[in-house]
Amino acid sequence: LDYQHVQVPFEITLWIMLASLAKIGFHLYNKLPSVVPESCLLIFVGLIMGGIIYGLNDRSPPVMDSDIFFLYLLPPIVLDAGYFMPSRPFFENIGTILLYAVVGTIWNVFGIGFSLYGICQVKAFRLQDVSLLHNLLFGSLIAAVDPVAVLAVFEEIHVNEKLHILVFGESLLNDAVTVVLYKLFRSFCEMPTIKSVDVFAGVGKFFVVGLGGVLVGLSFGFTAAFTTRFTKDIRVIEPLFVFLYSYLSYLTAEMFHLSGIVAIISCAMGMKRYVEANISLKSHTTVKYFMKMWSSVSDTLIFIFLGVSTIGENHEWNWPYICFTVIFCLVWRALGVLVLTFFVNRCHVNTITSKDQFIIAYGGLRGAICFSLVFLLPDFHRKKLFIAATTVVILFTVFVQGMTIRPLVDLLAVKRKRESAPTVGEQIHIRFLDHLLAGIEDISGHWGQYYWKDKLEYFNSKYLQKILLREYDQPKSSIVLLYEKLERKHAIELAQAGQLGHGLAHPSFLCSAFLCSSSDRTVITDQKLEDTPNPDVLDNMQEILARNLYRIRRTGPAYNRHTLPGDSEPTEQAKEILILRHKSL
Amino acid sequence: LDYQHVQVPFEITLWIMLASLAKIGFHLYNKLPSVVPESCLLIFVGLIMGGIIYGLNDRSPPVMDSDIFFLYLLPPIVLDAGYFMPSRPFFENIGTILLYAVVGTIWNVFGIGFSLYGICQVKAFRLQDVSLLHNLLFGSLIAAVDPVAVLAVFEEIHVNEKLHILVFGESLLNDAVTVVLYKLFRSFCEMPTIKSVDVFAGVGKFFVVGLGGVLVGLSFGFTAAFTTRFTKDIRVIEPLFVFLYSYLSYLTAEMFHLSGIVAIISCAMGMKRYVEANISLKSHTTVKYFMKMWSSVSDTLIFIFLGVSTIGENHEWNWPYICFTVIFCLVWRALGVLVLTFFVNRCHVNTITSKDQFIIAYGGLRGAICFSLVFLLPDFHRKKLFIAATTVVILFTVFVQGMTIRPLVDLLAVKRKRESAPTVGEQIHIRFLDHLLAGIEDISGHWGQYYWKDKLEYFNSKYLQKILLREYDQPKSSIVLLYEKLERKHAIELAQAGQLGHGLAHPSFLCSAFLCSSSDRTVITDQKLEDTPNPDVLDNMQEILARNLYRIRRTGPAYNRHTLPGDSEPTEQAKEILILRHKSL
Repeated sequence: LDYQHVQVPFEITLWIMLASLAKIGFHLYNKLPSVVPESCLLIFVGLIMGGIIYGLNDRSPPVMDSDIFFLYLLPPIVLDAGYFMPSRPFFENIGTILLYAVVGTIWNVFGIGFSLYGICQVKAFRLQDVSLLHNLLFGSLIAAVDPVAVLAVFEEIHVNEKLHILVFGESLLNDAVTVVLYKLFRSFCEMPTIKSVDVFAGVGKFFVVGLGGVLVGLSFGFTAAFTTRFTKDIRVIEPLFVFLYSYLSYLTAEMFHLSGIVAIISCAMGMKRYVEANISLKSHTTVKYFMKMWSSVSDTLIFIFLGVSTIGENHEWNWPYICFTVIFCLVWRALGVLVLTFFVNRCHVNTITSKDQFIIAYGGLRGAICFSLVFLLPDFHRKKLFIAATTVVILFTVFVQGMTIRPLVDLLAVKRKRESAPTVGEQIHIRFLDHLLAGIEDISGHWGQYYWKDKLEYFNSKYLQKILLREYDQPKSSIVLLYEKLERKHAIELAQAGQLGHGLAHPSFLCSAFLCSSSDRTVITDQKLEDTPNPDVLDNMQEILARNLYRIRRTGPAYNRHTLPGDSEPTEQAKEILILRHKSL
Repeated sequence: LDYQHVQVPFEITLWIMLASLAKIGFHLYNKLPSVVPESCLLIFVGLIMGGIIYGLNDRSPPVMDSDIFFLYLLPPIVLDAGYFMPSRPFFENIGTILLYAVVGTIWNVFGIGFSLYGICQVKAFRLQDVSLLHNLLFGSLIAAVDPVAVLAVFEEIHVNEKLHILVFGESLLNDAVTVVLYKLFRSFCEMPTIKSVDVFAGVGKFFVVGLGGVLVGLSFGFTAAFTTRFTKDIRVIEPLFVFLYSYLSYLTAEMFHLSGIVAIISCAMGMKRYVEANISLKSHTTVKYFMKMWSSVSDTLIFIFLGVSTIGENHEWNWPYICFTVIFCLVWRALGVLVLTFFVNRCHVNTITSKDQFIIAYGGLRGAICFSLVFLLPDFHRKKLFIAATTVVILFTVFVQGMTIRPLVDLLAVKRKRESAPTVGEQIHIRFLDHLLAGIEDISGHWGQYYWKDKLEYFNSKYLQKILLREYDQPKSSIVLLYEKLERKHAIELAQAGQLGHGLAHPSFLCSAFLCSSSDRTVITDQKLEDTPNPDVLDNMQEILARNLYRIRRTGPAYNRHTLPGDSEPTEQAKEILILRHKSL
């Protein structure tokens, strides 16, 4: 037996296996995941495993290594989040999101830091040795909402799109602020005196970290798109480039102390549309599938490790400090959301309701990022207290808030995501309005989002597409692309319906379809055609059948980390088509 | 700048990126890969890079770490080989393959070892300090044909299926022999005296290593199949299990000093048919795609590293030893093939021609496995000589033999792979003959391959399928499965043809199809149907159209590491259908 030789890959594989099997286990019992979020279950599994390891070895189980977390576990999740980010609501609310992410996070950091410092002044609590700087440092790591935790909970409760993107976008973009403040306070802690220059440098640094991240991400994204122009003869390695370039963007940003999360998101959003156009359909399926798979596994591992790392002797317990940390986290976030939303609502017509505000405040979950950051703190005598407080905050937010948020959403009747995707009519209407508004903004001289969007679109079609796309002859409108997609999907469904018919059908033809492509549109007509149909009759039939047979499928930006869009539908739709056929015969 | 922090993943990513870009680069110039095999080009890139590193740093570039090779680079390639292994020719020729792999390899090891020992006795060569055991040890690592090198060359020359599987199968299965002999001689080298017991233990060990590998592989394979029964609700992690279980089988086998290559191949071949039936179509595309991608990258990296590692000061040059090594490698292999084939041909009706024998002997390429094994040798004073000899043998076989084998195949007019896949008629015929031969063997009491195949099939459908498959109602015959696949493919093509028609078609309907599913078969009929067609006319039409529209597509076991079957065809086929339609209108 030679275990040493294979130890590293063997243990990694076993951990991933454990995570995957745990996932399967939960989904075998359908009732469990509908009550308890998966993240809680996974932490619970981790706690049990940690307990077993602790019991057997009689020493603390290994804590999650911060390097492993930041270098290997976090990037897949963020990449997935960025790649499948619904870009329209994101850019529509970018102002609000940035306000929450930047000002809100700063507010929380200082709020929590100063008020905890206040608590430390109470002599009875015996915390007077915790300095203001240390409290602020702790505030900077505990203030940031965690994208992994937010995603894990919010993807299951299906709140309306705007609410979702506000919480989710904030959790992603606050990384830049967290990085800056955390590093700033950590270096302040080690400095003998702090000059005002350093503070200003910190403010300047924020812009460097955030915008630098965007820049690094976009340049890698465009390089990726450019590279996929040349993969026509060697399709199998296409998916690789998507992963390699985005990972490189993350690592490069981390290397220069920029925000890796911001970089990888910009990279993914930047390359998506060009890469999709360049690579083959199968490559794209692989990219999507693998991204989902990877992020799903990463996220499972993170929560399990979180549970395992909780067990052990890393904690110093101090009731007042820990309790007040939890309370301040809740209070300052609530206050921050209230104040910021007040200003946001004054500038917008489409306001954020008080119910939505409550969910935004309540959805401020903390997770593995705080946990990794607290272990990265330089050693000082109260580090274990900070670890304990962070662990309690994470467990509190994930378990208590995570488990109660769904009933609360039900109770408050928060506006949900619309179940049906927008119809083609609606989509055309939206597109038309966009152009109209861009025109109005241009004429009135108000450079709003529509103006910039239009300019960007122009720049894109004029320059970027020519450089980055392989076959650039004329831009296909998204309506045409949608039609092509539907057509392809429908064809597959027809084939499947034919198979489904084996059992039900009488020996003659049951399922029959008539694919008819006219020059500008492709619709499905029935078989009952005369030998020489005149064009009018044909058009009429096409229309009737288009109405009956096509229900425009979901094309909306439904985000779910564990399923790919339209994963389970085909059989149902095929059945529906079968029934419709049956009637028409 | 904080490079240390991200160094490991950054450098790995960069190496993979380099490999992928090199691959794209070669395929941009279509002429190059048709003359020089990709493996040679990659080694050449590696040599240049090694030279640059050597020139800049003034010390030897890092050699390929044997652990990295065996733990991370080799498994994907072998997994891919096992998963896409054409099982019919493999099992039909399993006896011959095993003979070549076991007896042939032993023959080569002892042949090369003893004759090199003979060379060492010549005083003029100053090699008298190389003992017999060291020569045998060297023989055991240099004798084995390398699957990676063989694949890289043979997939480009398209020899007939039997010849391909003979060389390829041998290169895979000789791993068990290599492992045993290499470890045996290495331990002998360290022993003071060798007892005859140890020799017998070595012989017994061979069966343990080989059969143990098969057993480990099959058990992991069946566990994988069993696991995928329960992934219905969580499709995205399905592909993961294929990779995790096969990797675990490899690592487990390595841990117990069994043959990892044999294990992973058994695992892949064992799970394939059940996993394919259990997982969704998209998951399966992802599995196939990712396997190809991974093995493609691994193989690229191996050849680049091989080139890089060649540069440096690891070599001790001794003309006679090195030249005779190359000569003995060629001579003993040729002799072995001749002798073994003589016996094989006496037992078989379908003999191996002398041309095929020549290619088998000539196709005995050495590669990265030898290279890694020679670096794993315990330190002794002539290790650098062995490294030099191994490097020369590898470069000689890959460059000289690899580059001349294609012209030789052309020159000798070796029987090529048939271009067209077998028709459905042929397939039915083969199936029928199988049953017939199984019956004859059963009656005559001769337990040949057909008898065992039949028994295995019975066992499979009686027990295995019930346990391992999710939806086990009735076994679909492969003809039905083929039809379903064709139907699906055809539907997609129709949709694409509709799109293709945009440019060509006149405004009325150009592309029209009529999918008609009767209870037992699904064929495509034309549009010109009367309103109430009588069954005879319908049948007739179905037949005509089935003949005209369907050309049975390749379903054969064409093996290529860099492309997935049917990757580039669809558009052409769609065009063909369009043209046929055009005529019929």
